[in-house]
Amino acid sequence: MAGNSFGHLFRVTTWGESHGPEIGCVVDGVPPRIPLDEADIQHWMDRRRPGQSRFTTQRGEPDRVRIVSGRFEGRTTGAPLAMIVENVDRRPKDYDDIARTYRPGHADFTYDAKYGVRDWRGGGRSSARETAMRVAAGAVARKVLGDGVAIRGAVVQIGPHAVERDGWDWNEVENNPFRCPDKAMAERWGAFLDGVRKRGSSAGAVIEVRASGAPVGLGSPVYGKLDADLAAAMMSINAVKGVEVGEGFALAAEPGETAADEMAMGEDGPRFLSNRAGGVLGGISTGQDVIVRFVVKPTSSILHERRTVDRDGNETAIRVKGRHDPCVGIRAAPVGEAMMACVLADHLLRHRAQCG
Amino acid sequence: MAGNSFGHLFRVTTWGESHGPEIGCVVDGVPPRIPLDEADIQHWMDRRRPGQSRFTTQRGEPDRVRIVSGRFEGRTTGAPLAMIVENVDRRPKDYDDIARTYRPGHADFTYDAKYGVRDWRGGGRSSARETAMRVAAGAVARKVLGDGVAIRGAVVQIGPHAVERDGWDWNEVENNPFRCPDKAMAERWGAFLDGVRKRGSSAGAVIEVRASGAPVGLGSPVYGKLDADLAAAMMSINAVKGVEVGEGFALAAEPGETAADEMAMGEDGPRFLSNRAGGVLGGISTGQDVIVRFVVKPTSSILHERRTVDRDGNETAIRVKGRHDPCVGIRAAPVGEAMMACVLADHLLRHRAQCG
Amino acid sequence: MAGNSFGHLFRVTTWGESHGPEIGCVVDGVPPRIPLDEADIQHWMDRRRPGQSRFTTQRGEPDRVRIVSGRFEGRTTGAPLAMIVENVDRRPKDYDDIARTYRPGHADFTYDAKYGVRDWRGGGRSSARETAMRVAAGAVARKVLGDGVAIRGAVVQIGPHAVERDGWDWNEVENNPFRCPDKAMAERWGAFLDGVRKRGSSAGAVIEVRASGAPVGLGSPVYGKLDADLAAAMMSINAVKGVEVGEGFALAAEPGETAADEMAMGEDGPRFLSNRAGGVLGGISTGQDVIVRFVVKPTSSILHERRTVDRDGNETAIRVKGRHDPCVGIRAAPVGEAMMACVLADHLLRHRAQCG
Amino acid sequence: MAGNSFGHLFRVTTWGESHGPEIGCVVDGVPPRIPLDEADIQHWMDRRRPGQSRFTTQRGEPDRVRIVSGRFEGRTTGAPLAMIVENVDRRPKDYDDIARTYRPGHADFTYDAKYGVRDWRGGGRSSARETAMRVAAGAVARKVLGDGVAIRGAVVQIGPHAVERDGWDWNEVENNPFRCPDKAMAERWGAFLDGVRKRGSSAGAVIEVRASGAPVGLGSPVYGKLDADLAAAMMSINAVKGVEVGEGFALAAEPGETAADEMAMGEDGPRFLSNRAGGVLGGISTGQDVIVRFVVKPTSSILHERRTVDRDGNETAIRVKGRHDPCVGIRAAPVGEAMMACVLADHLLRHRAQCG
Repeated sequence: MAGNSFGHLFRVTTWGESHGPEIGCVVDGVPPRIPLDEADIQHWMDRRRPGQSRFTTQRGEPDRVRIVSGRFEGRTTGAPLAMIVENVDRRPKDYDDIARTYRPGHADFTYDAKYGVRDWRGGGRSSARETAMRVAAGAVARKVLGDGVAIRGAVVQIGPHAVERDGWDWNEVENNPFRCPDKAMAERWGAFLDGVRKRGSSAGAVIEVRASGAPVGLGSPVYGKLDADLAAAMMSINAVKGVEVGEGFALAAEPGETAADEMAMGEDGPRFLSNRAGGVLGGISTGQDVIVRFVVKPTSSILHERRTVDRDGNETAIRVKGRHDPCVGIRAAPVGEAMMACVLADHLLRHRAQCG
Repeated sequence: MAGNSFGHLFRVTTWGESHGPEIGCVVDGVPPRIPLDEADIQHWMDRRRPGQSRFTTQRGEPDRVRIVSGRFEGRTTGAPLAMIVENVDRRPKDYDDIARTYRPGHADFTYDAKYGVRDWRGGGRSSARETAMRVAAGAVARKVLGDGVAIRGAVVQIGPHAVERDGWDWNEVENNPFRCPDKAMAERWGAFLDGVRKRGSSAGAVIEVRASGAPVGLGSPVYGKLDADLAAAMMSINAVKGVEVGEGFALAAEPGETAADEMAMGEDGPRFLSNRAGGVLGGISTGQDVIVRFVVKPTSSILHERRTVDRDGNETAIRVKGRHDPCVGIRAAPVGEAMMACVLADHLLRHRAQCG
Repeated sequence: MAGNSFGHLFRVTTWGESHGPEIGCVVDGVPPRIPLDEADIQHWMDRRRPGQSRFTTQRGEPDRVRIVSGRFEGRTTGAPLAMIVENVDRRPKDYDDIARTYRPGHADFTYDAKYGVRDWRGGGRSSARETAMRVAAGAVARKVLGDGVAIRGAVVQIGPHAVERDGWDWNEVENNPFRCPDKAMAERWGAFLDGVRKRGSSAGAVIEVRASGAPVGLGSPVYGKLDADLAAAMMSINAVKGVEVGEGFALAAEPGETAADEMAMGEDGPRFLSNRAGGVLGGISTGQDVIVRFVVKPTSSILHERRTVDRDGNETAIRVKGRHDPCVGIRAAPVGEAMMACVLADHLLRHRAQCG
Repeated sequence: MAGNSFGHLFRVTTWGESHGPEIGCVVDGVPPRIPLDEADIQHWMDRRRPGQSRFTTQRGEPDRVRIVSGRFEGRTTGAPLAMIVENVDRRPKDYDDIARTYRPGHADFTYDAKYGVRDWRGGGRSSARETAMRVAAGAVARKVLGDGVAIRGAVVQIGPHAVERDGWDWNEVENNPFRCPDKAMAERWGAFLDGVRKRGSSAGAVIEVRASGAPVGLGSPVYGKLDADLAAAMMSINAVKGVEVGEGFALAAEPGETAADEMAMGEDGPRFLSNRAGGVLGGISTGQDVIVRFVVKPTSSILHERRTVDRDGNETAIRVKGRHDPCVGIRAAPVGEAMMACVLADHLLRHRAQCG
């Protein structure tokens, strides 16, 4: 019920603002006796960390995570795991000019309208800074899932430029600053985003996240469907405006004859001959790859002047300076992976509870 | 946590199988003293009811809803509202041949894999019959929202044929069997679907649901975002494989200069100059129309033979007879409306709780 | 969150009013493949059923339970289990005189104050009739727990007369109309309650519920403690005003030297030398008997005239006729057993989720 | 669902171990724009703080609370309120001898049995140190309730010595080290506890908590009853073994004629002529004082040797040194107040949600 928690049995609660002293999370329900080190978390934090290329924000945050409870002698204890990250590069003064003016595309107006008060320092609670703790929680979720489950994310479209499926190479994802699985497209994106940056503009993106090795049977019909929870998980990420599973929206135009995945017998039992469903049928995992895509809108903070209003009801215009990602979608890939991990870990525990 | 419940403060729990004696729901958290009649519910039930044209299943279900608790002297009491619908046209025998064979695209395999048991009569719990109770709950949600909030759904694409936005006329939606807002396209769909039906095939669809009049401030960052809950709500509907808000996936290719909605002052305060965001910013409603679209895959039950396996691990083929919707998306529109109503009602109560 | 649901993974939602057409419940989260018959439920329903002696209400309710979903071919399916009981002996007219007058000790005033409306027919939702569905849900919970767990309840005090621990004989409980484990005391209670009944008065009671065979490890610190959930479960039963675990309130006066249960090694591992803690330490079951007691206040509906007010703010007096239990505590024993079963089943699933 | 959270709309999640670096909590759902300072919290923290007399543990903890999120410019923002307290006086070495031995009356055995791992430093998560964060959350809850609601706790029994109701003076509670409302009894307790301490023993206690000014209508039948939630809240406090509301267990022996509180008209509407029910009828507050009592068992850590076993299955004996409260009940009074505040705040928001 609480708005700042996610999941049921593997339950993540995050707190903290973009320019507050610290951000943190509590992960409750973690199974005991799982070996866990700060380094296990840090590995994933570093993949999301800002400032790793000229295509992401230059805010200098080391994102050092501290585990302050729930671990004893190197293993989880079953008690809530609390993690804290210090906000090092705080510059609240940078935001003085937006203290009273609503930035288009941001949550400034809606937070003010809802709460009548707003921490305007870098967006406060509505900032994507919060997603750092999702990645921390996701790192724990991966531990719960174990080595048999691999969760990987890739950026598959930036602006109007989508990757070719034929050129897909997972190894490329860590080789370019875009998490692009298509080497040729990565180069094209570089040129495209340099142009975007120089124009003071921004670009949207589509991210694909795949989980391999997830067991069959995860998901709880009819409202706790695996894909329903994945949809909520991805849509809750900042700037996300759409989510699809498997072939997604393309299935509208697909004829019935080819839309459903046929089955045959494999060496280990029933297997599917295709995966248009994205690994989920009736809300339950099929044992195939679980495949989700989501769209991230262009970063709203751009150098172009846009019309807006202020708190006092005056019409005005704004041009948002500061340190922003020209394509926030790039850093959303590790966040999408983390949310996938959290959803799967939660459903793993839920499945174990009901079905043993 | 329970898989068969939806919402937090306006909480819906459904039960029942496609060919069981009855289906029903319990709606908890309903504010007291709301006038409520069976007829209020029935109006919306009838819009989803099967057998209304040759394009939907011919199962003969009157879908008469009985309110059996939570109402006294014509008004809600604050106690849980229980509603029951009898399954009249039960024909479990029709399904004997699928008792042991997994229909491609259906939940047969995953239910069996998860639970080790499966009510195969018409899909049992995984059948879209369950959505009748969503519509009943949605009718109550509309009462909670009041007359100021109008929720309307339309089918905007069937197969590869999408409506033109210019030809949009809400009045047309009730004038054709497709809930199509575009008169010319409705005719085209008729011809298209006749062909689909004759071929024993099926078609997918995209549905758009709009809520007008929803107040600003609904939605609870960061995991209880209005659009996160809408995404889960729509994705939980049978056969749905994707959800988008506002411009959705199209925002990937939109430049930053035009992606964010600008603001100006209107007569009643700040207003937006466009609605690409679909009425949600930072997970909180803006006061504009809340706009959601979702895709429904083609009906999996088709007359074409498809490869599959049975419970005993034999490869086989199946051709699904019975009474099916050639385009299940048509009847999904009222269900999408109902889910929108439930999400908004829940968030209305949640907002009132926290912000008074 | 919803007020009419109980439990998390084994989740019970009840609905219905005392003189409405039906009462029912939905039990979600039930593990699949458990053999389940109406007779399994009915056995426990009959133990709570009214009219079994002159010491309980004479309302003639057969309490026939129908399972309408979640079961297929004699086994649970993992889908929500819905059960319905018809209210046969409805006499709403009996309650005309309390339609506008608040009965002391009842929820009439508070329901009206909270909701501004009230189903006054026999107390509506606030009636102990609701507990019938707790017993139905508890019967399912017993199936989840399996034969290794035995849950038994006994009345240990009626009015000022408490049983002697030395005379305790579980076999006696089913031999007298009071569920009294002490044969001599049962006779004394008979005489005492005849007097109470003749005076038009009523008596309170204390019930003890014991679960034997519950595994060690159930309970989830620090807010999901087994005893915290048991306390809520018992306190939620109509007319209950206190709950204690193990030695309970007597521990205030116990010296530290004897208050804690010592341990030694038994044949199967560590064992406790006493059970003052009632089978719970730190909120987690020890493997010993889980022991809970709760007090039921005297039935508020008595034939004596009491001062009160009506809805219009007039002072008045009332004498409550109708068919009431002179000691509602007697019928609370099976309800307490049911709540114990539900709590243990929920925690069994929760424990399995986190700890495998 | 998560075991370390409490409440639904006013939702408290705590984390941290007795001898970890920090303990903390997240309070989600706090209404916005409430003025809030560290000093507001500290005032209540100081009342629970250890080492304030020779009758409580001598551990030197300043319990300085830091608010690290959810507040901006001195007011709550609606974002989650995170609070952190540093553990200053950590002495994990003191506990080396209990690393492998189960202390009778403690959670050592059950944590080990459940989780297979245990932070044995001062009890880890099972330590009453956790209650510091309950008091912090309770301080916020008081702010939500406003000045109209006064919540006060008193110790009413220590060992076998109970206060006289006639001698009750709330002003005395802050004048003696026992939170005793009866001056004469406070002196007697001093002598009694000196003896207990010298004998190396410990004593139990009963605490009474009263909330005055709580509005009528709080509580959500039938499982979300105000008293059911209070029972869970109090029972979740360390060492509590029983809870009662109003007259509680004494109602078993009360005749029906006097058990129910009569009503008459007062200046502001209906009023009750007594308060045996403890301010709750049918699970809903009556507008009278809400009265709860709970029993705290004698501190389990005593200097006397007790029989026990170790992790390796050897029988042994233990004598627990360290810095312990001879009567942990004394410090439980502020914790009980805090839990009362949290329950009322949660129900205030829940009531506002459903009933406006």
